[in-house]
Order: sequence, then structure tokens, then C-alpha cells
Amino acid sequence: MLTTHPFDDDKLREECGIFGVSGAEGAAALVALGLHALQHRGQEAAGITSWDGRAFHTHRAMGHVAGNFDRDDVIRALAGNTACGHVRYSTTGETSLRNVQPLYAELASGGFAVAHNGNISNAMRIRRDLIRSGSIFQSTSDTETIIHLVATSSYRTLIDKFIDALKQLEGAYSLICMTPEGMIACRDPLGIRPLVMGKLGDSVIFASETVALDVVGAEFLRSVEPGELVIVKGTEISSHRPFAPQAARPCIFEWVYFSRPDSIADEHSVYSVRKAIGAQLAIESPADADLVIPVPDSGTPAAIGYAQESGVPFELGIIRSHYVGRTFIQPGDKVRHLGVKLKHNANRALIKGRRVVLIDDSIVRGTTSLKIVQMMREAGAAEVHMRIASPPTRHSCFYGVDTPERSKLLAATHDLEAMRTYIQADSLAFVSIDGLYKALGSEGRPRVKPGFCDACFTGDYPTPLTDQDESGTPVDQFALLEERVG
Amino acid sequence: MLTTHPFDDDKLREECGIFGVSGAEGAAALVALGLHALQHRGQEAAGITSWDGRAFHTHRAMGHVAGNFDRDDVIRALAGNTACGHVRYSTTGETSLRNVQPLYAELASGGFAVAHNGNISNAMRIRRDLIRSGSIFQSTSDTETIIHLVATSSYRTLIDKFIDALKQLEGAYSLICMTPEGMIACRDPLGIRPLVMGKLGDSVIFASETVALDVVGAEFLRSVEPGELVIVKGTEISSHRPFAPQAARPCIFEWVYFSRPDSIADEHSVYSVRKAIGAQLAIESPADADLVIPVPDSGTPAAIGYAQESGVPFELGIIRSHYVGRTFIQPGDKVRHLGVKLKHNANRALIKGRRVVLIDDSIVRGTTSLKIVQMMREAGAAEVHMRIASPPTRHSCFYGVDTPERSKLLAATHDLEAMRTYIQADSLAFVSIDGLYKALGSEGRPRVKPGFCDACFTGDYPTPLTDQDESGTPVDQFALLEERVG
Amino acid sequence: MLTTHPFDDDKLREECGIFGVSGAEGAAALVALGLHALQHRGQEAAGITSWDGRAFHTHRAMGHVAGNFDRDDVIRALAGNTACGHVRYSTTGETSLRNVQPLYAELASGGFAVAHNGNISNAMRIRRDLIRSGSIFQSTSDTETIIHLVATSSYRTLIDKFIDALKQLEGAYSLICMTPEGMIACRDPLGIRPLVMGKLGDSVIFASETVALDVVGAEFLRSVEPGELVIVKGTEISSHRPFAPQAARPCIFEWVYFSRPDSIADEHSVYSVRKAIGAQLAIESPADADLVIPVPDSGTPAAIGYAQESGVPFELGIIRSHYVGRTFIQPGDKVRHLGVKLKHNANRALIKGRRVVLIDDSIVRGTTSLKIVQMMREAGAAEVHMRIASPPTRHSCFYGVDTPERSKLLAATHDLEAMRTYIQADSLAFVSIDGLYKALGSEGRPRVKPGFCDACFTGDYPTPLTDQDESGTPVDQFALLEERVG
Amino acid sequence: MLTTHPFDDDKLREECGIFGVSGAEGAAALVALGLHALQHRGQEAAGITSWDGRAFHTHRAMGHVAGNFDRDDVIRALAGNTACGHVRYSTTGETSLRNVQPLYAELASGGFAVAHNGNISNAMRIRRDLIRSGSIFQSTSDTETIIHLVATSSYRTLIDKFIDALKQLEGAYSLICMTPEGMIACRDPLGIRPLVMGKLGDSVIFASETVALDVVGAEFLRSVEPGELVIVKGTEISSHRPFAPQAARPCIFEWVYFSRPDSIADEHSVYSVRKAIGAQLAIESPADADLVIPVPDSGTPAAIGYAQESGVPFELGIIRSHYVGRTFIQPGDKVRHLGVKLKHNANRALIKGRRVVLIDDSIVRGTTSLKIVQMMREAGAAEVHMRIASPPTRHSCFYGVDTPERSKLLAATHDLEAMRTYIQADSLAFVSIDGLYKALGSEGRPRVKPGFCDACFTGDYPTPLTDQDESGTPVDQFALLEERVG
Repeated sequence: MLTTHPFDDDKLREECGIFGVSGAEGAAALVALGLHALQHRGQEAAGITSWDGRAFHTHRAMGHVAGNFDRDDVIRALAGNTACGHVRYSTTGETSLRNVQPLYAELASGGFAVAHNGNISNAMRIRRDLIRSGSIFQSTSDTETIIHLVATSSYRTLIDKFIDALKQLEGAYSLICMTPEGMIACRDPLGIRPLVMGKLGDSVIFASETVALDVVGAEFLRSVEPGELVIVKGTEISSHRPFAPQAARPCIFEWVYFSRPDSIADEHSVYSVRKAIGAQLAIESPADADLVIPVPDSGTPAAIGYAQESGVPFELGIIRSHYVGRTFIQPGDKVRHLGVKLKHNANRALIKGRRVVLIDDSIVRGTTSLKIVQMMREAGAAEVHMRIASPPTRHSCFYGVDTPERSKLLAATHDLEAMRTYIQADSLAFVSIDGLYKALGSEGRPRVKPGFCDACFTGDYPTPLTDQDESGTPVDQFALLEERVG
Repeated sequence: MLTTHPFDDDKLREECGIFGVSGAEGAAALVALGLHALQHRGQEAAGITSWDGRAFHTHRAMGHVAGNFDRDDVIRALAGNTACGHVRYSTTGETSLRNVQPLYAELASGGFAVAHNGNISNAMRIRRDLIRSGSIFQSTSDTETIIHLVATSSYRTLIDKFIDALKQLEGAYSLICMTPEGMIACRDPLGIRPLVMGKLGDSVIFASETVALDVVGAEFLRSVEPGELVIVKGTEISSHRPFAPQAARPCIFEWVYFSRPDSIADEHSVYSVRKAIGAQLAIESPADADLVIPVPDSGTPAAIGYAQESGVPFELGIIRSHYVGRTFIQPGDKVRHLGVKLKHNANRALIKGRRVVLIDDSIVRGTTSLKIVQMMREAGAAEVHMRIASPPTRHSCFYGVDTPERSKLLAATHDLEAMRTYIQADSLAFVSIDGLYKALGSEGRPRVKPGFCDACFTGDYPTPLTDQDESGTPVDQFALLEERVG
Repeated sequence: MLTTHPFDDDKLREECGIFGVSGAEGAAALVALGLHALQHRGQEAAGITSWDGRAFHTHRAMGHVAGNFDRDDVIRALAGNTACGHVRYSTTGETSLRNVQPLYAELASGGFAVAHNGNISNAMRIRRDLIRSGSIFQSTSDTETIIHLVATSSYRTLIDKFIDALKQLEGAYSLICMTPEGMIACRDPLGIRPLVMGKLGDSVIFASETVALDVVGAEFLRSVEPGELVIVKGTEISSHRPFAPQAARPCIFEWVYFSRPDSIADEHSVYSVRKAIGAQLAIESPADADLVIPVPDSGTPAAIGYAQESGVPFELGIIRSHYVGRTFIQPGDKVRHLGVKLKHNANRALIKGRRVVLIDDSIVRGTTSLKIVQMMREAGAAEVHMRIASPPTRHSCFYGVDTPERSKLLAATHDLEAMRTYIQADSLAFVSIDGLYKALGSEGRPRVKPGFCDACFTGDYPTPLTDQDESGTPVDQFALLEERVG
Repeated sequence: MLTTHPFDDDKLREECGIFGVSGAEGAAALVALGLHALQHRGQEAAGITSWDGRAFHTHRAMGHVAGNFDRDDVIRALAGNTACGHVRYSTTGETSLRNVQPLYAELASGGFAVAHNGNISNAMRIRRDLIRSGSIFQSTSDTETIIHLVATSSYRTLIDKFIDALKQLEGAYSLICMTPEGMIACRDPLGIRPLVMGKLGDSVIFASETVALDVVGAEFLRSVEPGELVIVKGTEISSHRPFAPQAARPCIFEWVYFSRPDSIADEHSVYSVRKAIGAQLAIESPADADLVIPVPDSGTPAAIGYAQESGVPFELGIIRSHYVGRTFIQPGDKVRHLGVKLKHNANRALIKGRRVVLIDDSIVRGTTSLKIVQMMREAGAAEVHMRIASPPTRHSCFYGVDTPERSKLLAATHDLEAMRTYIQADSLAFVSIDGLYKALGSEGRPRVKPGFCDACFTGDYPTPLTDQDESGTPVDQFALLEERVG
């Protein structure tokens, strides 16, 4: 089945975006806007929970924010001045409305809602232990383990229970939690997943990316720091650091592909970093060519950087359909053999007879790169040089990013020349790992304490991988929870 | 808002019907048929859970069985030879898909599904205690307390945990449970709610009423006895009686209204009992009239009994629309003042100038009786005599039947003459409580140990009402769980 | 595919019901109520057109009136004090929204809407001629020919054009038309299909049956007479008779089955006629039995008549599910062999060991009669005697009733004894054609000028059958018009 | 109501795209792909008609091609080797399924389907005459007049009738027609709307733009010429020229905005023309600035041209959300006052302190330009210079483009300085009309016989405007045809 996402299908996928507002009238409407701005981080489902001072309200839906959370009745039902929300990407098999966040539970202390970006890498072991002692799970989500740990903690106050729970977790988590007493935002000790803080009038806002602050007109204050808990009670904001200090290791792929170019992640403009990677790529791997062509849209900033550094003109050689937001399932067997260009089309008049440098952000399986090189050749390109604005992706991510199994990663099974042959380019180059760090302002990747999680490129995982180390077979019966709604 | 159910709106409502099949190929298809036959016991939602030897599968849906569980894809997904299902009626505020049964949980011993007809009258107290010790509830249903009691029981085997849980319950429950090891059916010690057992070839079937056995072509074996647990493992059936023996008190309203006339409840034909009540009513309260007219359809068997005993001819004086299954919301303010007869219409040509005896099964609020008497008068009836085939309904039910609050029950606030005046009849009579017991084969209602629960008529509740005795205010935040599905 | 209509599938089907209101505030809401009361005359689709003094408004929908025409937004959009509507039954292949009535066209004189019950038996010949002269059809409905005849008539006034059109038609038609100047109701010269007239305050109402007048609280005035045009302009009503007078021949099946028992058709109470047929049947074909059992619901009035005449007690031996309005498609191949009783179930406790007389209104294919006799035997009936409250149905209808082709009619291919054998009854009898006329107040069926159309029993068609006489093959390309709406 | 299209709302809208395939297996699937590629020409509705040698099949739907025409069942039902389709944009009030094309009628010669891009400027007068002589219209579309003219023509052959009809039309039309004998494509004598011709194997393809040929893998042959009829019968192609020769005047706005940049319109690459306009603009109206920023996406090619000509670097200063395909209705009154940037967001890190040149393709109402200038200022731009890649739009279009009434066109009521003030830019310039013609390869706009229709800029309409000259009030009752489908 071809879709209008033939190229996007070959990307790593961020699994979540989160957004929270404390103390603003019509909080849920702001959360809806914020989630819409974070839609690129998860398109399968979305949810919002609000607190109106007496009761919590939740609406969750499969599909996009638009169409579900722009309905007046929905937003009106999400009453209150405090709200948080979540957008989710997930592989098909595991998606059901029960897994859509925010998750909510009635604890002895009152209601407790949580929105989570990341992945708990020892969630299955914790879950097994909790079921043995009588806990009943309602979802297959790793996030639910956090709630059960809070519910069964022997500490007395909710905050202490919460910290007790966090200390049992391994992996990546940026969390926005709501309780009757206030909102809690926190980021795991390594700060693997992003979380920023802003303000809009007197209200406090948390979001996965600064672009979501922009969309609601809020001012960006700072990132929540790795290992930090920020607690907002009314207008009072307090910061807590329950963990021993550690060097931060934010996910470097946020700058390569995940974050929107107009976001600022941990103090670096994403657009500027991408242009710098492109420039670095031009220095490391120049090409004798007539045109620099971005693979739209994610390759565009790096292509501008490459063009400016190299002096080769930047041109739109691939036109992207305006209607890619909707999946188009190609109908009919008869037309499958055609080279269908539903999403991208070559700008033939431009390309014919020219030597082109294609700039893309990454290669995952390589299937897209092959198609796009072929498209250039069919349009009459004289030479096709592929330049990639990240190092080869060779390892799976266990911190909340959907990666194919290793054997499907082109770079895990092919060397550079084999990759070039596979995608049928005249030349192929990736930016070096040191080049990538340079674009982020370092001298290169340090041997010890590198400043980022770059495990997908290097295999250097910054936390234990407990569930992977164990047998790790998922419990079959959970399939039941895939409840169907008629 | 008027609907096509103007009269049915004034009935007590049964809250549930349950059906289970152990050991039949295509078990879920049989459950769908059985639930369709039990649809009169609950029209708001339905669910089926199956077990295929390796995994449980659940489908739950708002609405009728037809339209949801007659789809091939749905039934095919409910794989396995063992399945149980549930139809549910509930008041609007509390309905959400999370509350639709069967409920399911993953316990340390494996999956556990339960379908429940009845109401646990100390569920709120149990729930409060469980939340305090760290249990997390996913629904507002009293049924979920049963699962948590099983999950947290300190007994070792699942059956022992289950019995431990049952012993903590007060109220009414007929249950069908599924575990990887087998199916468990049980009925509370007083047998308040019905449950029968049948067989179809080698498979065992449990159902709320015998009519559901008829529909699947199964043979009726016997009722599950009050306080009995029947466990089916493969072809092995065992019976257990963990409770001290007590005299049974099945709900007498099953014969008055709830059960279908073609069912046999605790060895009495429902149709025969209703005709006998009608005959008893003719003896106790004769009327000098030309026609006996049933309020269709529930008053028909008693009207036939009344006509046969009195010699006054039985006639269809009220015609019921064939299209009452679908709600028709009367559109437009302009027409509200009209005497709308969307569901029932007087047979004017028959009624004009005649003295009629109307037979109905019960009076709840009295609003329907008033409308129907008025309808007879508008059609030209010379006299209208109302006869009711049950005693005055004066008390609420706490055992799984939806009753209006007491102040809304006409008989709780009006004496006989005031009721007659209210409904504008020329005469009004109810069958006596002794007459009702006579129709069921007794001499009359015994002073001690009456053989039925007749609390709605007498106020004689056979169990403690713990949640009612406590403050009983429902916890507000549960409103949150009313998740909306977009 | 079994459905919950296993028995109803074996009935003749009325193809339409119509309802019109002139001069009432909120006319469309009244039409919606009226159509709901006529739902038994057509369940596939419904439509309403209103006129607000400046513009016409139309809403048409597949499916029932309830669910489509009880929505406030729909009714509000159908503004105006004049409105008419239509419910339609049709065989699957020919149904599309384009064919749903009222049909509408913009003529030189202004808008023109028409709702039609009946069938034009020379519509195809007229259509062919109109296409040749440049008319463009938008539906496959015979009704559209009427509009084109009006549009292309060379007469000057709209009424003259309309009468010119009618004079070219053969067959059966009761029509309600709307123009900017007023409402026109008319009935074909033989009055084959019914049409009655009522009033509600100052407004005039037309309907296929009196029951629809009852539902809106209107007073029944009289039937529109065969060959009569009634024109309503504001509060002015005029009657016109453009045709040479002819003896009326209304469809006799209206009293047998089509009309609701609480309707009065051409001055005869339908309920009384049905009881009289049952009594006549008891006289003509008595049975030595213990119980008289109606096949619900259409056999009930005749069964009461039979029981009263014969003295054998009337009992509910077959219980009809309350949930038959919704189709239940039996899921799963595994359970197909079961004797499924989704719609009707035997009242076993009553029937066991008894000799029963079953009363049904008609036999079409005979498949239902066979099933119901088998159901009685499985429930333990000692003898089963079938009595039918109409003569054998041996001929197709071409006047707006959906009949199977002749070869499918049991009585067209079997004699009485062969029919008895086929349905496995101990005895079988139909009421005689003379008996049927007696129940309607005649002496019997007169040799000349019988007072009813009884062609389905006698083959005596009262009009030419032009389209049948010609080759009659339907034009294939019209399949195109089966537009699909996504 | 803000949507994700705040900027696109301020564009002229093309009203249609058409696509036809003659002689290819699975023709409808190819048409679906072609229409998807033309989706930018009309997003409100789409339709496809196919011919399988015996019957025509039509599917029409409101909404996008994706979601409606990518379903296997839909495509399979559109059987045959010949098919044509249509995408439509229309103002809300006039949209109903009846108006969605292709339109179809059964003529005496057989079926006739037509897909039309353009607008007949004397359609209302023709319609009025046709209704007077008895024609009945089923839509409010001007296209239906063409079919009626064919149906009522007194010529003998279908082709002669068709030419007879065309000769009565004024205005703009590119048509693809289907008859049982073959496909007819034609373009009005001035060639106002585009139509190209391609081949795929032995099959012939017609499309509004070459990009639709690319998508199905077809080869571009040539444009259908102004005034030309191309008739395809099987593999035989013939060209006819029934009109007196005239100088062509294709719509110049196709190059400014309507066509996709990867299309070639009347032999000019759209991308190259847009870059040339940008370069011309840089020559005519340079700006002393740091960055050239396109208003995405339509301003991008001109911005690249402007940057290359001026030497000022091209940068992405405005980031467009990936999720603009879906409308997001901003929920909640509380957040309306916020500067919401759902669709576009400023790249603050880039813009702060810089002097920017914004390049957009056109200004219609000016509301968007104002918002985008404000967005730049809020992001800290030092200076904002606006450059527009078309002359001021001062006149309405009557040839199939949806334009606001003249009083809403900013350039119709403001001079250049007033426009600059309105949009709050530091400077504003439009390309000259001569500059626009230069970008298309002319010396400038000739006084006589200009090579393009540029009426929106100049008011020089190349045809009579009959319906405008008459009173032109639309007939109210057509509102009726706005049938609602439930």
C-alpha cells in the first residue's frame, strides 16, 4: 500500500509531545493550540485533561488534534484553569484509546493525571511486580506503571510518593502531572527528552518545544533542567532536585529531525543548527554540481546551509503536494506499477541535464532515498549526489522513539559504498559525528561525557536497558485490552 | 423531550442481562444471539469477552446488540470456544464505555473477566478502602470492586480468592466469570437476580432467562441455585456452596414485568403467572365493562387472564406502532402541545361509546397511566377502569433495578383514591400482595420468610444497605472517567 | 442471511406513504410526525419538502423517519407553513437518493414538488418519448414522468398543464403536489391507492391513512374521492373532477394487511374488517382445537375474531421480540444450523400438548408459514391448523406494491393440498373471496364491477398494463444514476 | 473563525480541475491519481464518471479526493477503460452534491457526461430560456446548460449538437465529455482555462495541468489549443476547429498562483516564470535588506529568483506547519485575542534585528499581508519590506475563479501608499504589468491583442459579460436544490 507519505515512512518517529497550562482561563483551549503545534511529534492520538477546582475532565481521541479538539463542545466540557495534553505516535499493534494519554487515576489523595514523553526502560519488570501484589492495569502503556508506583508508595505526601516512584524508573521521561493541589513538571536525570517552560500573563506553561509557546503567544522562560521537578501551586512556583546531579544527555536527534526548525531546544535554534550541519557537510563532502536540492521539507534548512557554504544555487527541484496531510491509499491494482508521485514530484524543467546535490536529514531504511534518486534520474538529472545531514543511523532507540528493528536500518547492515550502490546515487556522504557536535557548538564528540544522547548513531546508551536485558517477551494477553469501540 | 417510549419511560428498568457459553465452537456468535434475546434487560450498551485458549478478546459498544454484534468482523475477532457477554441499562450520567461489561483484568494468575447482573450494596465502602491501599479503579462500576477484591486477596488459588471476595459483598449478584482455567457462574446467597443453566450439545450455557436458551436452541437444565458456584472446566462441571444456607428470595418483579413472557423463571412460566395475576385481579376487583383492553405489550397476558376470568371480551383498543424500537425525538416546539401518539394510538372505531377496563402491569410515576386514560376518553370511551397487575410500587430498589427516587413514585405519596384522581380513571385497583403470591402458587405472603424479594412493594429489604446507611454521596471526580470518544 | 424479519420478509410490501400539510405553523414538524405514523408503508427512505412563501426546502434521506427527521436542525431548515412528505419502500437495486421523494423541479411557473403513492403503468413509454424530444431525467422514478409532462404541456395555466399530464397516465396514483400557489391532492380515477383529508385548526391535511391524522391530533374529514383533485390555496379549498366518472376500485389488500388496524380506509375500520374476516374464517373453516394463536402482530385482529366466533380461547403462543425494528444479521457460520428464533419464540409452557389454530393474514412464498408450523411442533403442539385471513395470493401487483414474481408465489404454483403439505400443517384453509367481500359489507364479490381492486387474488387488473405489454426491458444505463455519496 | 488557512483565505481560488483518460485499463484509478495531483485547483468536492462499454458509472463526494476516491470499492464500481473526473472549489452557499461534476444525462443518443473548468458568462440567460420551453434543471451549475443545449439541439448527430451548443456559449470553458462513442475534449476559442493532452501507452489523457500527467507516469504531448475539439474514438484521435480563429488569451494568473510550480502551462515552466517574476521584481524594486523571506509556500519560487538576482540571502523566516491540510477551528472565546500562529510561525532566532524582504505572490484583501508583517515585527525584525510577484489585483474574474467582490479587493480601493500603510510595511512594491509579461517572454504588455487574459489586473475582459449586464439577480428558489443528505 502506497500512501502520500512514501518518504516520511522512512523516518524515525518521535513518540510524543506534551503541553500543560496552569492558571489560565480556558486552559484546555490553549492546550489544544499547543498540541496542534506539536502535532509533528505524534499523529495517532491526542488527549487533554483539565481540572476545574472540583473535578477532572478528560477527552481522548484517535487521530489529529484538528477535528477532535477544535470542537466547541469538547473544549467547553474540558472546564477549568489548569489542563495538560498529549499527542501520541505509536506502532499500530499497540494503539487503543486506553493507551492514549493523559492517563488518570483516582488515588487516596485525589485525582492524578499524567502526560509522558519518553520511555521507561524497566517498565515491564515493574509492571510484573505490581501485578503480583494485586495492582490492576488498564492499559499497556509504560506510563501507567508510574501511576501505580505512586498509588502504592508507602510515603505519606503525594510529592514524596511521586519522587519515590521516579527513583524506581530507568529511561527517558518528561512528565506533566496534575493533582488537585497543582501541576508538576519534571524531566529525567539525563534530560533525554525535551521540556521547556514559558509564561503567558500569570499562567505557567510547559511544552515539549518552544514552537508551542509561540503558537499560544507565551514567552519562553527556560528549559526544565534534567533531573528537575517544577511544582506550580496557584501562582507559586518551586523547583526541586531529588536526584544526584549528572551530566545532561539530551537526544541529539531533536536537532537533526524531530523538533520543528522554529523551535529552540536547550538554547540552540533548531534552524541554525540544521543550517550549520549543512554547511559542515559542504565542507566535509563537497560536490561538483549545478544545483542544491532539498528533500522537502525536512532537508530544506541543511540544503540552504550547504548552498550558502558551497556557492551552488539552492533550487526547488522536488515539489511537495499541498495535500500530504491526508493519506491517499493508491486504489486499484492496475496502476501499482506506475511510478506514482503523489507526494513529491520532480521539477523536470529545472532538473533536466543538471548535476544535482540532494540534501536529506537522515537515512533509515533507505527505501525513500532510492526512490528519490530514481525520480531525479527519470527527470533527466545528469548526476545525483546525496548528502545526509546526520551520521549513519545504526542502532535502535529505547527512549521513546519508534525505530525499526536493527536489521531494517540500512546503515546497520551496509557500509558506505554498499549504501551508495543501494540508493543508486553517484556519490553519498553523511556528516561526521564530530561534524554534528560542531554544528551544536562543541569541538567534536568528546570521548567521555558526550553532551548528548547519540545512541542511535553510536550505540552508547546512557541508561541500563532492563527490559531488553530480561527475556523481554511482551505478555500476550494484553492484546485483549485492544478494545474495539463500535 | 418526548420519545416513542412515552409509556416505557414510566417503567422500572432492569439493569442487566448476562449470557455465557463454555466449550462451543463459535462461542461469541452464540453469546451475541443470547444477548439479543436478553436485550429487554438493558439497551444502553453491550459487551462480549472470549477466550481462545491463549488470549482474551473483548468488544464493547454503546447501543444495541444488533448493529454492533452482528458484524462478521466483530464476531470473528472474538475467537475461541468460551465467551460471555452482558447487556446494560444505566442512567445517563453514569454511562461510558469504561463501565460497559464484561470487565477484565490481568491478575497474577492470568486474565479474569466478569459479567454481573445485580448491585453490590456495599460497593462504595469497599472501593474507598481499596483506593486507600493503592488500588486504581478504571470504572465507576460496582462490579470492578469484585475484581480488585480478587486481585488483592491473600488466598492462594484463584477460586479461594474469588470466594474470599464474594464473602465481602452485600447485595445482589448473578455473575459469569472467565479465567484461563474455566468459567465460573454464581448467584448471591438469596438468589435475588436470576441465572439459569442449559446445554447445547456438549457445551454449557448460563443465561439470565430461559428465552436466551431457546434462541440458541439450547436445552434448559435448571436454575443456578442461590448461593451456588458452578465451575466449568472443559467438560467437567462442579457445584460449590461456600455460603451458609439461607432461604431464597428471588426478585418478584421478574414475573410482574422484567422477564419475557416466554421465559420460565425459577420453575414458573412467566406468561402463566401473568395470566394468573390477571385472573386474580378480576376476582379481587371486577368491573362492569364492555371491553378488556391491554396496555401493550406488557399488560397483554394479564388482560387475557382478566378477560377469561371475567367473560368481558379481550380487544385491541390501543395499537402500538411497529417502529418503537427507534427513538423518535419530537421535532419543533410548535407541535409540542399536540396530543402526540407516536407510540400508541387509540382504536377509535372500537372504543367510542364503550366502557373499558385497561390492564397494565404496574404504575411507577403514574404519568403514563394518566396519558392513556386521557387517550381513551378522547377516543370516546364511556367509562375507563384501570386495573394494575401488581401491588402499588412504594420503595426504591438497591439490587440492580433503576427506580426513580421514592418521592417520584406515585404510590409512595398518594393513597388509592388520590392515585385514581391523579390518573383520571373512573375506578382503579391493584392486585393485592397476597394475590400476587397466590398467582405464584403460594397461599399468600407469609409473615416470616416470604419466598421472594418484594421490597419495592413492602420495603422489606433482605440485605443490609451499607452504602445507603453511610453518607452515600458519590465521589465527584469520577465524572472524569466519563471519557468521550471522538 | 437471516434477519430479525424472517417472517415479515414473506409479506407483500406497500411501496409508499404520503402526507401533506397546508397552512400550519411548523408544517414540516407535522409532516415528520405523520410520516412516522406511516412508516409501515415504506422503510427505505423518506423525504420532506416545505414552502416558506419564497423558497422551497427539501431534505431527503435513506432510512427511517426517526433518526433523520427528528433532528431540530433538519426541521428548522424545512421552513414554512406548507409541506409534504413521503416514505418509500423499494427493492434494493433501484434505491438511490435521487429517487427518494418528494421530487422537485423548477418550472417556468415556479417550483413544483410532488409526492406519489402508486405506480404509473405506462411510465416507461412516456419517458422514452420525452427523452426523444430533449427532456433530461434525473431519476429512474416513474414519478418524474409526471413532472416532465407538466413542464412540457402546451396548456397555459399550471392546473391545466397538470390535468393534461394526468390524462396521459395509466395506473395508480395518489399525489400531493406543492406549487407557490397552493397544494394539490389527487387520486387516480379508480382510487386504487388511498388518500384521506383532515383538518387541524385552519390547516388542511392529506395522508395515506387516518392513523397519521390521529398522530398529529387532526380531525378526519373524508377520503379524497377517486378521480378528484382537491386544491388548497390559503384557506380556500376547491374540488375538481377532470375525469369521466368511473366505479371506484380501491386496493382490497389495504384491509388485509397494508393499513394499520387503527386506520379507517374508505369508511371501513381496518380492525373491524380484520376481525370480521377472522369470524368469517371461523364459519367457513372451523377447527377442533384448544387454542387460537395469532402470528404476531398482523394476524392478531383476525385471531381475536376467530376466537370470539369459535369460542376457542385466544392465547399468546408466539412471543415477538421487542427489538425487531432493528435488523440483526446473524453472525458466524457456526450457528446457522440452529433453529434461530430471533424475532419470534414459541411460548413452550403454553403450547406443549395442545391442538393449536394459527391465524395469519396471508401467505406469499410460504417460507414463513413453514417455519412457524415447525416452531409450534418443536414446542410440543399436538396438532397445528393454519387459517389464512385472505384468499390465496396468485398474481403480481403493478400498482405500487412490491410482489415477488409470480413463480415465487406459493398459491400460483400449488393447489391447497400441496400448500398444506409444503407448510407441514395438519390442516390449511383460506378465507374465500366472497367471504372477504362479506367482511367488507358486500354480499360477496359481484361478477361485474366489483367494488375493489383484487387483482392479486383474481388476476382481474382494472387498467391497461402498457409497459408490461411492450418489451418492457429496463434501460441499462440508468444504473448510472445510482450515484454513491461518500 | 480562524482556521489553519489564515493566509490561504486571502488568495484567489481556482474553481476547478479536470482529468480524463480514454482507453486505459482501470481508467478510474488513473483519474483518481490525476485529480489528487490537481487537488489544489478545488478542494470542496470531487467526482469521477466511467464508461465500461455498456453503462456509465458515477461517484461524487464532498471533500477531498483522498478519503473518497482511494477506496477499492469505489474504484472497482467505476468500471471501464474510459473515465473522466473533476475537482471543484465553490463558495459555501452554492455547494451541494447535485452541483458536483461530472454532470450526466441520458440523451436520446445515449449517456452524456461532462466535466467543466471555467465559467459560462451567459449561462443564466440560456437557462431562463430553456426552462420556458420545458427543460427541467437538476443543479444550479452553469455546466448543466451545456447538456440541455445539446439535448434540445435540432442538429442530427451528437457532435453537431455539441458544436451547436458550444456556439451559444460565452465565457471560459475547458471541457472533457464522455459519450458511448468516445471522449471529447475542448477549450474555448480564447483558451482562457488550460487543458493539456498526454499519452500513457496507447491511452490518451487530458488534464488541466501537466503535473497530473507526471503523477500517472504519462508523457506530455501538447496543450489542447484554444477553440480546438479533440475527439478520441478508440485509438483514433481527430482534431476539429469549429470556431473562427482568434488570438489566444490564456489566464495569466495560472503562472502567478494557480498552477503548481512543477507544471508547464502553454509551454512555459511555471517555476521558471515565477523565479523570473522574482528577478524582475528585484530589478524593478530592490530593497536594502539582510534576508529574503518567502511567504510559504506560494511565494517561494519568486523569493529564490529575487534572492539570486539581488544577492540577498534566501532564508526560511516563516515556518509552515506540516498539518495545514486539515482545518483547525480555533476553540474557545478565551483565546481569540491571542496572536495565533497555527499555520505559520516566525523563525525568531533568525529574524531578530534583521531587515527582511518578504516575497508573496499576490495581495487580495490584504488581511494576510498585514498579519505577516506584524508577525515579522513581533519577532524583532528591524525593517519589513514587502514585494509582490504580481501587479495589484483590482478586478473580479467571471471566468471560473472565485474573487471577492471588487470592494473587498485592497488594490481596488487603495493606492500604493495607502496599501503600504494598511499592511504596515516599511516599503511595498508590486511587479509591473510589463514586468509580468517580460517574465513570460514578451517585451511587455502589447497595447492591442495582449497574449493573456489579465482582466483581474487591467479590467480588460476578453468576452461579453451577458449575465452581468442583465439584472443578474440569482433565482432564489434554487436554494431548494441544496438538498441535505442524512
